[in-house]
Amino acid sequence: MSAPIVAKGLEGVVVGNTALSRVEGQIGRLTFRGYDIHDLARHITFEEAAHLFWKGELPTRAQYDDLKMQMAHARMIPNHVMQIARGLPKNSEPMDALRTLVSALGAGNPLKQPDLSAVMMLTAQTPILLAAFDRYRRGLEFIPPRGDLDHAANYLYMLSGTEPTAAQTRALNVYLVLLSDHGLNASTFAARVIASTWSDLYSCITGAVGALKGPLHGGAPSRALEMIEAIGKKENAETWMRAALAKKERLMGFGHRMYKAEDPRAEILRDLARGVCAPQLFELAQSVEQTGLQILHESKPAERIYTNVEFYSAVILHAVGLAKDMFTPTFAASRMAGWTAHILEQVADNRLIRPDAEYVGPAPRAVKAIDQR
Amino acid sequence: MSAPIVAKGLEGVVVGNTALSRVEGQIGRLTFRGYDIHDLARHITFEEAAHLFWKGELPTRAQYDDLKMQMAHARMIPNHVMQIARGLPKNSEPMDALRTLVSALGAGNPLKQPDLSAVMMLTAQTPILLAAFDRYRRGLEFIPPRGDLDHAANYLYMLSGTEPTAAQTRALNVYLVLLSDHGLNASTFAARVIASTWSDLYSCITGAVGALKGPLHGGAPSRALEMIEAIGKKENAETWMRAALAKKERLMGFGHRMYKAEDPRAEILRDLARGVCAPQLFELAQSVEQTGLQILHESKPAERIYTNVEFYSAVILHAVGLAKDMFTPTFAASRMAGWTAHILEQVADNRLIRPDAEYVGPAPRAVKAIDQR
Repeated sequence: MSAPIVAKGLEGVVVGNTALSRVEGQIGRLTFRGYDIHDLARHITFEEAAHLFWKGELPTRAQYDDLKMQMAHARMIPNHVMQIARGLPKNSEPMDALRTLVSALGAGNPLKQPDLSAVMMLTAQTPILLAAFDRYRRGLEFIPPRGDLDHAANYLYMLSGTEPTAAQTRALNVYLVLLSDHGLNASTFAARVIASTWSDLYSCITGAVGALKGPLHGGAPSRALEMIEAIGKKENAETWMRAALAKKERLMGFGHRMYKAEDPRAEILRDLARGVCAPQLFELAQSVEQTGLQILHESKPAERIYTNVEFYSAVILHAVGLAKDMFTPTFAASRMAGWTAHILEQVADNRLIRPDAEYVGPAPRAVKAIDQR
Repeated sequence: MSAPIVAKGLEGVVVGNTALSRVEGQIGRLTFRGYDIHDLARHITFEEAAHLFWKGELPTRAQYDDLKMQMAHARMIPNHVMQIARGLPKNSEPMDALRTLVSALGAGNPLKQPDLSAVMMLTAQTPILLAAFDRYRRGLEFIPPRGDLDHAANYLYMLSGTEPTAAQTRALNVYLVLLSDHGLNASTFAARVIASTWSDLYSCITGAVGALKGPLHGGAPSRALEMIEAIGKKENAETWMRAALAKKERLMGFGHRMYKAEDPRAEILRDLARGVCAPQLFELAQSVEQTGLQILHESKPAERIYTNVEFYSAVILHAVGLAKDMFTPTFAASRMAGWTAHILEQVADNRLIRPDAEYVGPAPRAVKAIDQR
């Protein structure tokens, strides 16, 4: 036996191949199947990104119309799942509701390997599950989906009952495209570990939702907005942030393990925020960003620190009208495209994922009968 | 940057330390915190195994009585979860029901780090969730738990409405102890990946349940029994199994990636089966085992192949009165002790688990407008 490889957190360990996204943290580049996300953000909608991940290519006009129609038709939720959405405690975290509802969607389906049609359907259903729970918890009626609206617009419509503006739809589409995949992050990896046992799609996605919920992964974007709101105005930024650091609190929305240059998603979202959010909030956010970077630079001059994708995600999602606790679930709705594509990739060339651990417990010993212990 | 480590399936990659179980596949030894499982199987109940994993030591008599009482008190399920158990499609896989109900238990709880009390409670609740769903799907009333019965006996009682015999309770206890942990198998690893994001206990366990469901992991034990039943009598074993292999089908219940010697759990369960199951079935199982091993040895003479833990698990679980599709969920009820202990171990010394992938997709290319594609 050769000596084992030891890699806590698996940083730098390649667990397999992917043809989906490429994260080049050193130069701040992110590409999806070879397309730079700056280029994608300008041109495509969420459905086009999903098509790119699932089928390998951006859709032609006819393929795009077809996928939009299929996804609109898939916006049906079985009765037993709607009843659960209605019956969950109203104070449930929307991420807990999503995890439960995705799992319930899988109940009653015979075990089968994840495939394109299941993946398309669940991706289409995700925003409906979220909108249903969000309406019910607010004591409102469920708003049926509208087949003439695209994925992003229909989601906003089902939450609010009002058709979103073109600018709001565009902003949410850009967000949904940008966040749709990012290598083997913890939730995607959890989905692939589950898929590697030949389990079903719903099991993989409930695992991924549970992982995304964690504050070290996707669970913190609302906190960046909370920080901006708590700071309230430009003049307070420096005092507030220095006080937070003095209390050993983390400034939310700064730094990312993968990026040593600016996260390209942050850059695109900043530009987008300029156009879609209230000027006062945008200016405040920019000022908080600059002050935060300056203070962090002072304390760690050797490190290059940037705002991460969460910072302007929070600003954008707020601007399109989402409640703070819907930020992470909306991130999940975006990441559905990447999660599902990774699951398909895993099952297409599968090997059970089962690492080793170093045993550091007690040496062999004998069991004593309970009254002798 | 150093060259990346490439390890598909992560075989032989040590992702962290554990003081819980040690799998020594070469010599066929399995120890829990230093205790050989042969020794544990003779002496302890499931609650004692859980205490060992959670607290590091086997309980004294007073600690044992205390834990049993606490776990009996924790056998309460909130109303909204019972309603979901009642409302799920009756043809749901019990594993899908368990995944959904564990997730629903987490809804309405504020996010907090997994701790001993949450872990104890969820472990105590798991068999209740299973029994509730199983009774409802059969159109029967829920049977309230009995505080005077231990974990294993109460589970059997809630499923059937009849107090199990001492032999049945003992057999199930041995099964629950033996299967309670096994290094970083896929479900345990999925739970740790999710825990590494600082997500909550329910998210970790729903992910683990989803992974255990996979046929490459825990999803196949009933198939060993189905094979034994299909063979029907000793005389058929050889013809049936040779025909299956000729059709490229796998013989269920043979071989394990980790063991190059006999899986010690299989050995203990075989002995246990001798005492608890109908003599006719035990003889048939033994005959199927011997014939299977002989045929597999002929086709791969260089490999040492043994029956794995699933083979006699199926026989034992059938003997204590469980339906076939309750085998994997009962495995989950056992593995709760290990899963939860691993989650506690992960959060006690955490690093986000985020591996790398090798990008093998298209080279950089430019996005074309949709009508030019």
